[in-house]
Amino acid sequence: MIDDIIIKGKKYEGCNASFEKAQIVLFGAGFDGTSSYRPGSRFAPMAIRSETFFAQEDYSPYFDRDLTQHPVHDLGDVEIVFGNSSKTLDHIEKVSRFIVEHEKKPVCIGGEHLVTLPAIKPLIDRYPDLHIVQLDAHLDLMDELFGDKYSHGSVMKRIQDLLSEPFRIFQVGIRSGSKEEFAYARNNTRLFKFHVNEFLKNLADLKEKPIYLTIDLDVFDPSLIRGTGTPEAGGIFFQDYIEVLKRLEKFNIVGADVVELAPHIDPTQVSTIVTSKILRELLLIL
Amino acid sequence: MIDDIIIKGKKYEGCNASFEKAQIVLFGAGFDGTSSYRPGSRFAPMAIRSETFFAQEDYSPYFDRDLTQHPVHDLGDVEIVFGNSSKTLDHIEKVSRFIVEHEKKPVCIGGEHLVTLPAIKPLIDRYPDLHIVQLDAHLDLMDELFGDKYSHGSVMKRIQDLLSEPFRIFQVGIRSGSKEEFAYARNNTRLFKFHVNEFLKNLADLKEKPIYLTIDLDVFDPSLIRGTGTPEAGGIFFQDYIEVLKRLEKFNIVGADVVELAPHIDPTQVSTIVTSKILRELLLIL
Amino acid sequence: MIDDIIIKGKKYEGCNASFEKAQIVLFGAGFDGTSSYRPGSRFAPMAIRSETFFAQEDYSPYFDRDLTQHPVHDLGDVEIVFGNSSKTLDHIEKVSRFIVEHEKKPVCIGGEHLVTLPAIKPLIDRYPDLHIVQLDAHLDLMDELFGDKYSHGSVMKRIQDLLSEPFRIFQVGIRSGSKEEFAYARNNTRLFKFHVNEFLKNLADLKEKPIYLTIDLDVFDPSLIRGTGTPEAGGIFFQDYIEVLKRLEKFNIVGADVVELAPHIDPTQVSTIVTSKILRELLLIL
Amino acid sequence: MIDDIIIKGKKYEGCNASFEKAQIVLFGAGFDGTSSYRPGSRFAPMAIRSETFFAQEDYSPYFDRDLTQHPVHDLGDVEIVFGNSSKTLDHIEKVSRFIVEHEKKPVCIGGEHLVTLPAIKPLIDRYPDLHIVQLDAHLDLMDELFGDKYSHGSVMKRIQDLLSEPFRIFQVGIRSGSKEEFAYARNNTRLFKFHVNEFLKNLADLKEKPIYLTIDLDVFDPSLIRGTGTPEAGGIFFQDYIEVLKRLEKFNIVGADVVELAPHIDPTQVSTIVTSKILRELLLIL
Amino acid sequence: MIDDIIIKGKKYEGCNASFEKAQIVLFGAGFDGTSSYRPGSRFAPMAIRSETFFAQEDYSPYFDRDLTQHPVHDLGDVEIVFGNSSKTLDHIEKVSRFIVEHEKKPVCIGGEHLVTLPAIKPLIDRYPDLHIVQLDAHLDLMDELFGDKYSHGSVMKRIQDLLSEPFRIFQVGIRSGSKEEFAYARNNTRLFKFHVNEFLKNLADLKEKPIYLTIDLDVFDPSLIRGTGTPEAGGIFFQDYIEVLKRLEKFNIVGADVVELAPHIDPTQVSTIVTSKILRELLLIL
Amino acid sequence: MIDDIIIKGKKYEGCNASFEKAQIVLFGAGFDGTSSYRPGSRFAPMAIRSETFFAQEDYSPYFDRDLTQHPVHDLGDVEIVFGNSSKTLDHIEKVSRFIVEHEKKPVCIGGEHLVTLPAIKPLIDRYPDLHIVQLDAHLDLMDELFGDKYSHGSVMKRIQDLLSEPFRIFQVGIRSGSKEEFAYARNNTRLFKFHVNEFLKNLADLKEKPIYLTIDLDVFDPSLIRGTGTPEAGGIFFQDYIEVLKRLEKFNIVGADVVELAPHIDPTQVSTIVTSKILRELLLIL
Repeated sequence: MIDDIIIKGKKYEGCNASFEKAQIVLFGAGFDGTSSYRPGSRFAPMAIRSETFFAQEDYSPYFDRDLTQHPVHDLGDVEIVFGNSSKTLDHIEKVSRFIVEHEKKPVCIGGEHLVTLPAIKPLIDRYPDLHIVQLDAHLDLMDELFGDKYSHGSVMKRIQDLLSEPFRIFQVGIRSGSKEEFAYARNNTRLFKFHVNEFLKNLADLKEKPIYLTIDLDVFDPSLIRGTGTPEAGGIFFQDYIEVLKRLEKFNIVGADVVELAPHIDPTQVSTIVTSKILRELLLIL
Repeated sequence: MIDDIIIKGKKYEGCNASFEKAQIVLFGAGFDGTSSYRPGSRFAPMAIRSETFFAQEDYSPYFDRDLTQHPVHDLGDVEIVFGNSSKTLDHIEKVSRFIVEHEKKPVCIGGEHLVTLPAIKPLIDRYPDLHIVQLDAHLDLMDELFGDKYSHGSVMKRIQDLLSEPFRIFQVGIRSGSKEEFAYARNNTRLFKFHVNEFLKNLADLKEKPIYLTIDLDVFDPSLIRGTGTPEAGGIFFQDYIEVLKRLEKFNIVGADVVELAPHIDPTQVSTIVTSKILRELLLIL
Repeated sequence: MIDDIIIKGKKYEGCNASFEKAQIVLFGAGFDGTSSYRPGSRFAPMAIRSETFFAQEDYSPYFDRDLTQHPVHDLGDVEIVFGNSSKTLDHIEKVSRFIVEHEKKPVCIGGEHLVTLPAIKPLIDRYPDLHIVQLDAHLDLMDELFGDKYSHGSVMKRIQDLLSEPFRIFQVGIRSGSKEEFAYARNNTRLFKFHVNEFLKNLADLKEKPIYLTIDLDVFDPSLIRGTGTPEAGGIFFQDYIEVLKRLEKFNIVGADVVELAPHIDPTQVSTIVTSKILRELLLIL
Repeated sequence: MIDDIIIKGKKYEGCNASFEKAQIVLFGAGFDGTSSYRPGSRFAPMAIRSETFFAQEDYSPYFDRDLTQHPVHDLGDVEIVFGNSSKTLDHIEKVSRFIVEHEKKPVCIGGEHLVTLPAIKPLIDRYPDLHIVQLDAHLDLMDELFGDKYSHGSVMKRIQDLLSEPFRIFQVGIRSGSKEEFAYARNNTRLFKFHVNEFLKNLADLKEKPIYLTIDLDVFDPSLIRGTGTPEAGGIFFQDYIEVLKRLEKFNIVGADVVELAPHIDPTQVSTIVTSKILRELLLIL
Repeated sequence: MIDDIIIKGKKYEGCNASFEKAQIVLFGAGFDGTSSYRPGSRFAPMAIRSETFFAQEDYSPYFDRDLTQHPVHDLGDVEIVFGNSSKTLDHIEKVSRFIVEHEKKPVCIGGEHLVTLPAIKPLIDRYPDLHIVQLDAHLDLMDELFGDKYSHGSVMKRIQDLLSEPFRIFQVGIRSGSKEEFAYARNNTRLFKFHVNEFLKNLADLKEKPIYLTIDLDVFDPSLIRGTGTPEAGGIFFQDYIEVLKRLEKFNIVGADVVELAPHIDPTQVSTIVTSKILRELLLIL
Repeated sequence: MIDDIIIKGKKYEGCNASFEKAQIVLFGAGFDGTSSYRPGSRFAPMAIRSETFFAQEDYSPYFDRDLTQHPVHDLGDVEIVFGNSSKTLDHIEKVSRFIVEHEKKPVCIGGEHLVTLPAIKPLIDRYPDLHIVQLDAHLDLMDELFGDKYSHGSVMKRIQDLLSEPFRIFQVGIRSGSKEEFAYARNNTRLFKFHVNEFLKNLADLKEKPIYLTIDLDVFDPSLIRGTGTPEAGGIFFQDYIEVLKRLEKFNIVGADVVELAPHIDPTQVSTIVTSKILRELLLIL
């Protein structure tokens, strides 16, 4: 009785499906332990959900769909073990695996980009030919950052290590990295620098493949998303993103994430408001 | 004598015509009583005028015209009766009617979008075939918001109620609304989603018609205008706006408004500075 | 199994007791529907809990107690029915009544000050001689605000209406109100203007009485708490607050609340961080 | 008719007296032309008036008086001639003289501290034994700043030059200046460093004298007033200010000003809100 | 020994060449003495260098070059004589001349736009047929601003005065100025309004000429660069800038500057981060 | 010649002594590598020096001394090896040792509190009976934080490990820590909670002892210093700090530091401005 009017945790507005009926399961992973420059993505899952409650429509005119009629369940947040990265990453992996084992698609709200590693692992196990589409300003292909193998700057390298062959990762919108990272990319990934246009012309190899879509918010121009850890000039805008989703809509996306929102950096809250909508559109095409 | 050096209220810089000689009359209506999410547009008229004084040229290279040589009078602000919406709306209507009765074009600085209702009423009375161009991110076609018929979310619905026939409102740049609002729009308004391009190709029906132009600042991308109540990703930029003005310049615009600037939200003041210029260009094409 | 590592809603850190074992039950009521000037207290419960997770010790050197060993349960948030004040207030009352009926002390995190009304009602019913200590900059004794009887500006008047006799409300730290409100206070409440000193010398009448403690954060100087709806110069500081708690510790406080934090207004997050600690000390003396 | 509901310029709320009936005349002088570090006080008169409209009571519990029943007229703002300091200062002087000649007390809202010079001149002419109480963090006794004799850093030196004898300026709360300025102060002014306490014990010489009170907001601790050009640690708080006013209330204050608020610097608006109240209390004791 | 681990001043990261081996010499000139509206560019050289240290790659994927392998030396900052503009400008000129005399290209980080005047003088002396490319929102062709011949608003007029013939200055991206300035431009400069497109089609006359490139950051859209003194709606984006650099890369640029960043205005630091990258790309094409 | 007008790195204004003649040597150590919550103290040395240049007097009325006549040399900044804490700490220790070996007093500007460890080591070696006065909100006596022995939360524990006996560290103004830390303090340090008063009554044991003074800026109330990593309600104000310095002035302070300023967190810059002055007064009593 009292339970009806008590909310244990605010859900992403419109994600009304029960876990059982859901085909898509959203969860938060507010880990930012390796972000030494401008952390704060720990606050993202909470901030995003809250914005959807106060200021977002459930209906998208881009896809003429309504989130309330879409089979999405919001599971809550993965428990962060503060100061213990490996345990935290382990938790994220367990939650993602749980979702995958129940034949549902996991969608993770970061946290920093490193959360993609545990979130994607169960899908790599499940889909031996998993392909990855990474919207990002940065290659994230360092072998290590500050002596650490597990970092937001090395996450795609770690993921490539898990894949059985190269050229499965499509890196889109990239405009920053070291010379070494770009050299590595040439031999190991599909690189589409600066824009989404070239990528949109090269979707053939993704057909019929299981795809994981990881969206680092710094792929967007810092004009739009100022509240992120390492903003880079020259990014994409929301309309470009919608173009990508419109094309990927017919593909077999089996999991996704949206990472690197640092809400407190942007005092206008616009970064959070826009990210909420980025996530809404993403959920609607899955 | 002393009056020469005392300013009772700062005017929009360059609006030098007397009321008598003016063909365009600017006035402020800083009402934001129905904005429950991020109010603050009450401060807009004052903030805009102040910016023009310190940092804006009177001359526009877009239209090669100078505001000081343009017949605009700045009347001042409508008195807001704090906590009494209906009386405030009544005041706005009276001021607009006064301007219209003197054969001049009213241009209103909001305030929230609801101020368009009283500002437009005298023009609907005057021009039975008035057409409306609404630049906006939101449809504003709810029948009521939180049980209230008079709200920033229902203002275009209320205006449509006043019109004698459908399809007189051209809704441009729209990218948010409920499923129901979009359904209503299909049967009642001319809808041009997302961009201004389609609108610019469909101006024929506006020819020779009296037009009211209402600009909700959230039609702009939140990259540019962060200081507004309900920002929506995917908006237009200043250049698109100039395109619209260049085309509408030859049409018969009989009144206009610029609404929903919330100056305090943007600590860089850029939202206010840009809005001042949006208004300058608008005044110059009337 | 997966439930162990999923958090449905972040709790106030250190509130580890089960509902059954708890003597104190914390809940959020993020309602700010009547705040027309600087709303935002809707975000407070979430922001406070989040800060406690990342940056707050469980142990208080002021009272030499540790929250983890204190019988507090964090129940979650009352469901806000957006745009429907009366239903929302009804929800808050139900939750508070549920706690009281289980012989526990409710502690509510607002939301605006109006939430005190439904939170306190079940305690007025239960304790016919309930006394109220209100730390506040404002009297909140208007009969109505903008024609509304139920408002953050009239909440203490509404509460007085529920009490069987005058002079049960101790208003402490007051430094703003209309002439009429001060006149009403003279005949109906115990008024201690500006400071806490006079109040601390007049505690005798509170002995053995059941007390409800309501803390409007604007009682604090705006130097400290900038993130609140209606800041008033000349307030108390944290040390004064600790003095009050040290004296009230031995009294019979049966319920409490902390209201009017608007986290987004303060870009340094200090207002939220300080409020988290204000709440920690409060919980530890109950 | 239409004039009744049009506001040419927002007045300081509650200043309802006509010019004729007023004994106190408020005017704005938003000049900040010599502030090279953190200008912005040009926006102060407007920002203060606006705050009073939305968020300030007319009644002061400190003095048990109501502004609406006090003989204050708000004249508006002195016209600033942008980029022409001497003409602007001349305008300010004319307005102040106009008020003084009508047997009324001028109260000026700055602008930077240099505006005190033209505001005070007519009073020096009128009252040969005028004394000055300066609440300020800085001595402002440089002979020139950056080669300029007329500057916010030299204003009190310029005023002393106008006085017929030394020790007429009481400098209170001072905590910054060059060695040379402090040496000059020793021989020419009454200096009360750091606090107001010593000043309050030395009021005897002000008895029966005409007094001008100039309040540079940086006399306040930057904890409270962050939005000012040159904040200095170690200032006074609002309660100290009230103490000063309570003592000065019985003295013959013939003019006053409040200067150096730079509203845009403080994104929480608290500096403006507090200044509005500083001004209200000042008006009520005149 | 200790000198190895002491940094006298942080250098722009990656500028590793010694002065002797360098072909390009970077220096800061943090002068903002004529900026009366929103100063703060004095902080720019320091803020930019600092950002490069913490958050910028040395490698540019746009030009496939690495700054560490590029012959750039960072000389440090020109001494600003606070409050003495002419001496400061003289210092800047001396430093620029020193660099030019050593057969190196000076690259200056402003400071306000007036610093271009002393920075360019030694190059005008050296290259009688020097041409200038000015990326800017403003013409900066006033004869004087507030009675001052040497101002950020008149700098290009002063430079034109030094040139032996008209039409040597290419003004690109311009969208603000007085009617008189535009008239002057028609007869004296090559004007490319609003966009870079027209300019890119008219590069022929720059072939084989020595070119000075001055970048006023307000040429960028305020969406991207909010932290500048006089932002103007309708500017270029980073991609347009890269287009310009790609075309100018083959031309003979003999000196350059980047001016008008005011870091403190943008609380997200994005303006500074983006400017650091604007400068990196510029250095890499010289 | 050119060197006279080039500044390799801005010095703290007024620190004019050569290294040889100096008795006090200031250096920056902008390391914040273990701050996971709100880093940013890396920017402090630069921000503080910059503020002193633009806005600070050399003369202190508190101590009637002028920094320009005081034997202070500003050495510059210790090179931070980004991502390598131990090498960075080693650098700081080397610089401090270099200063101590030259019979001068080191004064370090942090960076986070961990920099105190390498800064103090050479002084512990040199003065076997070194005593430490720590102004701080936090005990910093954890044995490790997140598995790390070397952290801002464990720095005083590490220092105690280096001392030959307990009760040499005077911890002043403390108001946060775990139960275990407070237990450790009871047996190992001299603890003066909340205020400076008790400490000022217990200075006898410091007489004739060499003293190191470490000032964590969070000892100040967050009203004043909002820009620090872990602000704690209930701190001291500037006047209390001056009291401490006035008493310690006659003692033998052999080294000092000021740590934990995070300039970017406070958009008003007040935290930096105040810290510059905290440092000026400190330098003047050494």
